Amino acid sequence: MAKQNKIIITAAVTGATHTPSLSPYFPSTPDQIIEDAVKAHKAGAAVVHVHARDPKDCSPTPDLGVMKEIVTSIKQQCNAVVCVTTGGAVWMSSEQRLAPAVDLQPELASCNAGSVNFVFADLAAKLENPKYDWEIPYLKRTNELVFTNTFTGLEYYLNTMNEHEIRPEFEVYDVGMINNIAYFMKKGLVQKPVYLQFVMGILGGIPATVDNLVYLVKTAREQIGDFVWSCAAAGKAQFPLVTAALTMGGNARVGLEDNLYLKPGVLAKSSAEQVLQIKEIAERLGLEIASSDEARQILDLKGIDKVNY
Amino acid sequence: MAKQNKIIITAAVTGATHTPSLSPYFPSTPDQIIEDAVKAHKAGAAVVHVHARDPKDCSPTPDLGVMKEIVTSIKQQCNAVVCVTTGGAVWMSSEQRLAPAVDLQPELASCNAGSVNFVFADLAAKLENPKYDWEIPYLKRTNELVFTNTFTGLEYYLNTMNEHEIRPEFEVYDVGMINNIAYFMKKGLVQKPVYLQFVMGILGGIPATVDNLVYLVKTAREQIGDFVWSCAAAGKAQFPLVTAALTMGGNARVGLEDNLYLKPGVLAKSSAEQVLQIKEIAERLGLEIASSDEARQILDLKGIDKVNY
Amino acid sequence: MAKQNKIIITAAVTGATHTPSLSPYFPSTPDQIIEDAVKAHKAGAAVVHVHARDPKDCSPTPDLGVMKEIVTSIKQQCNAVVCVTTGGAVWMSSEQRLAPAVDLQPELASCNAGSVNFVFADLAAKLENPKYDWEIPYLKRTNELVFTNTFTGLEYYLNTMNEHEIRPEFEVYDVGMINNIAYFMKKGLVQKPVYLQFVMGILGGIPATVDNLVYLVKTAREQIGDFVWSCAAAGKAQFPLVTAALTMGGNARVGLEDNLYLKPGVLAKSSAEQVLQIKEIAERLGLEIASSDEARQILDLKGIDKVNY
Amino acid sequence: MAKQNKIIITAAVTGATHTPSLSPYFPSTPDQIIEDAVKAHKAGAAVVHVHARDPKDCSPTPDLGVMKEIVTSIKQQCNAVVCVTTGGAVWMSSEQRLAPAVDLQPELASCNAGSVNFVFADLAAKLENPKYDWEIPYLKRTNELVFTNTFTGLEYYLNTMNEHEIRPEFEVYDVGMINNIAYFMKKGLVQKPVYLQFVMGILGGIPATVDNLVYLVKTAREQIGDFVWSCAAAGKAQFPLVTAALTMGGNARVGLEDNLYLKPGVLAKSSAEQVLQIKEIAERLGLEIASSDEARQILDLKGIDKVNY
Ligand SMILES: [Zn+2]
Ligand SMILES: [Zn+2]
Ligand SMILES: [Zn+2]
Ligand SMILES: [Zn+2]
Repeated sequence: MAKQNKIIITAAVTGATHTPSLSPYFPSTPDQIIEDAVKAHKAGAAVVHVHARDPKDCSPTPDLGVMKEIVTSIKQQCNAVVCVTTGGAVWMSSEQRLAPAVDLQPELASCNAGSVNFVFADLAAKLENPKYDWEIPYLKRTNELVFTNTFTGLEYYLNTMNEHEIRPEFEVYDVGMINNIAYFMKKGLVQKPVYLQFVMGILGGIPATVDNLVYLVKTAREQIGDFVWSCAAAGKAQFPLVTAALTMGGNARVGLEDNLYLKPGVLAKSSAEQVLQIKEIAERLGLEIASSDEARQILDLKGIDKVNY
Repeated sequence: MAKQNKIIITAAVTGATHTPSLSPYFPSTPDQIIEDAVKAHKAGAAVVHVHARDPKDCSPTPDLGVMKEIVTSIKQQCNAVVCVTTGGAVWMSSEQRLAPAVDLQPELASCNAGSVNFVFADLAAKLENPKYDWEIPYLKRTNELVFTNTFTGLEYYLNTMNEHEIRPEFEVYDVGMINNIAYFMKKGLVQKPVYLQFVMGILGGIPATVDNLVYLVKTAREQIGDFVWSCAAAGKAQFPLVTAALTMGGNARVGLEDNLYLKPGVLAKSSAEQVLQIKEIAERLGLEIASSDEARQILDLKGIDKVNY
Repeated sequence: MAKQNKIIITAAVTGATHTPSLSPYFPSTPDQIIEDAVKAHKAGAAVVHVHARDPKDCSPTPDLGVMKEIVTSIKQQCNAVVCVTTGGAVWMSSEQRLAPAVDLQPELASCNAGSVNFVFADLAAKLENPKYDWEIPYLKRTNELVFTNTFTGLEYYLNTMNEHEIRPEFEVYDVGMINNIAYFMKKGLVQKPVYLQFVMGILGGIPATVDNLVYLVKTAREQIGDFVWSCAAAGKAQFPLVTAALTMGGNARVGLEDNLYLKPGVLAKSSAEQVLQIKEIAERLGLEIASSDEARQILDLKGIDKVNY
Repeated sequence: MAKQNKIIITAAVTGATHTPSLSPYFPSTPDQIIEDAVKAHKAGAAVVHVHARDPKDCSPTPDLGVMKEIVTSIKQQCNAVVCVTTGGAVWMSSEQRLAPAVDLQPELASCNAGSVNFVFADLAAKLENPKYDWEIPYLKRTNELVFTNTFTGLEYYLNTMNEHEIRPEFEVYDVGMINNIAYFMKKGLVQKPVYLQFVMGILGGIPATVDNLVYLVKTAREQIGDFVWSCAAAGKAQFPLVTAALTMGGNARVGLEDNLYLKPGVLAKSSAEQVLQIKEIAERLGLEIASSDEARQILDLKGIDKVNY
């Protein structure tokens, strides 16, 4: 695997896990999401990863118009690569989750590499006076759900992304999912460079330990061959794990989707703060930060001029 | 972890993966299942793991009567510990899958430790003239399904098994599932001894390699502490992996549920043949085979007198 | 790494670790060594690995004449590939250890890939009435020695073996030694196919566990690329570890150099008995045994007609 | 393993590997060593690890007077824990290497946990106009040497350290050495807390990769149980590896003994600069830095009032 010279920082600014009342700094309206994405890019994130939220109640939404508003505004304000989620939220249908990619044809979209329990019900205990009624039931309901990504679904996602020249960013939640990707590679549905995002520490998936990260990377080396990879980790494991990734030749995803804190006990005021912090660590490790255009080269993206927004 | 003196051989005689036309020796009717289970026990299997099949078309069935017939007949003929599946088949509902355990209150029942794609659609290509119309669609449909085991479901299964003193045999398909078990241990829902069955090589789960087996065992040692474990592996990886488990202090599951062959190119005429073969390997490794009563001790089972059949 | 079709069994019949009084079956005179090597070959060992012993007191000897007598007689009686030790005994000089390879120019010779404590002093406690005075001091002295293989020495060994077309069988005692081999590969001193013998369970080296074996193999895959490998393990770990190697695509070394037992509590009457036992395991794993000529192909040896004895 | 709240930074300011002409900032005279040690302590190093150098030609020296001068002066100027080397230089005798510990009875002394090739001959190529005649031959000679630490020697070192209440800091160069320590633990020669320094990337020892670090730590967890550990890595691997150690709950050793650079292409002006850099990384990981007195507590040292200098 050729050594990468510059590292890509991805900022995942919102996601579909956290609810607004978990942090006063959490961006929940489309405007907040846009603002935070742009700030994160300016702080050093070559890529911003976005989910849509309902402008009224700030809950995750499959509304295509909202997603379009978000990515369009980001495009107008900065040069960031936008990675559009196809994970949506755990309760959305497969079609709902894929729709933004079909509609907007972004440069990069997430692609979840298999099924897994995706439980964050224990966050409910942290909400004493939630602003919205939906928050606690939303969190608790994850006990009853599976994040469903069937092989038929994956095949459909990959064909669609290939058709629109969207690079899939494979979200890998456990070891077996690497084999799923290898399976679709053998079927000719995955084009190089393969881009893996190891998403660690989701309850149901592989825990966020350096041991596990090393094992994922070694397994991918044996099953995928050459690939580009990044690491995201839930909660307080975020900085240790993402930093460990940097020491291993990987890229870094930070952002309030994964972790609300900057340090133990200190809430991050924005994803940009986390971007800055990982950038400072990277620099002390002798690493340089990729610009968005450098990220486009590393990931061989089609370019911002070819998106449909 | 105290070293175990005798090894438990489990025979999984039928399962819900293979279809009758894949091998002329595959036990598909209740009578065949019973016969094969008893033979496997006589060949050395302390435990027989059973699923029910429809007496007419030999498809996996949630019919309680059939399961009862099977376990009752086995009990009449031999002293084997019967492990009743709660995996059922991938398409069954959670309630259907748990029903046999509730009804029969066996000593041991499988308990699937999380959700995973469970794909065996590629077997359809091996069927040229299937005896039954359901076989090919049944296999292909696994592309569209997820083997669903939510946290709410797991909690319900564990409470039910605890209530009836049924020891859960945790089927572990990937690394994250060990953490799921640890999570329920912390909640007080899992009693010692913890019994793990690493089921490897299912498409969607962790591939069947010795590397992965070692990693599962090491992870469990760190997350679970003391436990008893066994290994099952799909297809031609069965004997290499199960043998590797024996060299590592684990127990062995064989049987036609997992693999139809005895050696490359040679179909097994019964699960008993596979039991015999792993027994011969075990003996050459200096290991002794546990009787069913010794398995009852190792797994601390309630005893055959306390089952409800 | 292309999958190997047939497995090479090596019988290490004597070595320089065990002393005659540790087992009545231990071959210690040149005649016994010859006889046991030939028997082991007939039982299925494609390769026999030999050390010389003094005809009078049965202690390890650097005497060239004795080694010549052994390999010549084996050649007259059978087609076995002979792997001549260059490890000699821990106390011998580097020149003494290399001399048999220079003199006899065998097809295959061991080549120790680095330095390590090589302690077997605790065997002394098993000798109540040793036949020879040298035995107990010989064993105890290993506390004070290092098995010395400097980089200058390794370079000299490799140059000499290359000159005489002797394939080195790298004895690897710990993880770092794989890097030593990679270092000499980069210097152009190691020709393909690279042949690694993982020698596990020597006190001072890496312990004999399946975890460690997997780690050695994975590390070699990353550092060496393609290679042929085998496993040897000291004492009671012999059969578990060598069997695990077979399940992982490796080859097998057995023999009384490594372990005096056939099963717990049962002394092996010869290395041939151990060869037979691992052969029986291999067959049950669906593996075929390589003949000596097949081993010559796999290891790309120069042929028995080109040796100097 | 109880999680450690504060991390210990060790500064290894000189060592016996680098020669003066490799960097204009390398501290080679006793005065420079003292000054750099004190500066490193002030920058955040709770522990300073020292070797002696000849005041005239700056070569590693076994001279007891020089070592005494160094540690005495450090004690007068600051509160740092001093870890006195017993590794000395590779060519010194076992007695020469242990002498400073016997004479000075420090709180902490290094204890090399086995034998290994310790080659840094390739550094010679970096010296175009060395200031001293000894430098190039000194470096090249490491091809011919083994860093010798026999079991008899280790037993003697441990007994001596126990007698003088010196905590051994075990320098671990490969996986097997962890087993050596476990062996002496069973013999009752090692007192808790066990303190391991994983020294990675020495040619001859285990390479400096995060994979290997994880493997060392996991192995130690299985063989040693509870322990305190730190990581040092040679050359450009220093910051990635030491940072990875921090993400895994380990402590950090930096300093010019291990690496002459601060970043790729940028020579460190002192070990203090490296201490500062790892401290800045640690803080961004949410970690606090242990003071020398806190390090004394973590390592359960006898205290500076009980040393013999
Ligand atoms: Zn997302
Ligand atoms: Zn089953
Ligand atoms: Zn030998
Ligand atoms: Zn040192």
